Amino acid sequence: MLPEPPYLAVIFSSVRTTEDDPGYEATAARMEELASREEGYLGLESYRSSDRSGVTISYWKDEASIAKWKANLEHLVAQKLGREKWYASWSIRVARVERSYASE
Amino acid sequence: MLPEPPYLAVIFSSVRTTEDDPGYEATAARMEELASREEGYLGLESYRSSDRSGVTISYWKDEASIAKWKANLEHLVAQKLGREKWYASWSIRVARVERSYASE
Repeated sequence: MLPEPPYLAVIFSSVRTTEDDPGYEATAARMEELASREEGYLGLESYRSSDRSGVTISYWKDEASIAKWKANLEHLVAQKLGREKWYASWSIRVARVERSYASE
Repeated sequence: MLPEPPYLAVIFSSVRTTEDDPGYEATAARMEELASREEGYLGLESYRSSDRSGVTISYWKDEASIAKWKANLEHLVAQKLGREKWYASWSIRVARVERSYASE
């Protein structure tokens, strides 16, 4: 069920400015859909707390697939809105998954 | 504010069996406290959705610090309870953070 390492994880941690922005939810859903269509996409998990902080981890085959997704035109617009409007603060870590284990 | 790469991220994704177990919350809080006292601990972020799925990402200086935390006696008890009682499914990915960016 898990991809076979090595592959890459992009850990996007953020604090939203407000919870009351319907445009945010729609864009987040659209970005998930778009990302999942990119070559090299291996999965995504996303969570947010009631205190506005949250994390989205997306998994990718290699650096090329991350670079292509980062440069996606609709994604660029969303990134700009995120920086200017939706996020009070954010961080991105790019990490190489070296091993994994799972239940079952 | 972010640690300087390279360092390690342990991505623990899980689905709980139920939300109604006070012992779980107490143990989770205790594990956060214990982990934060370990040498090589660099931070932790944890989130859970209303559908019982969630993720905890802990950050560590090196493999030795992860191994030491994994073998902590209280943590071993918690891991066993997690496998047998608290989690319907789980996965662990160990990843090396290669670069990071942040707002501000």
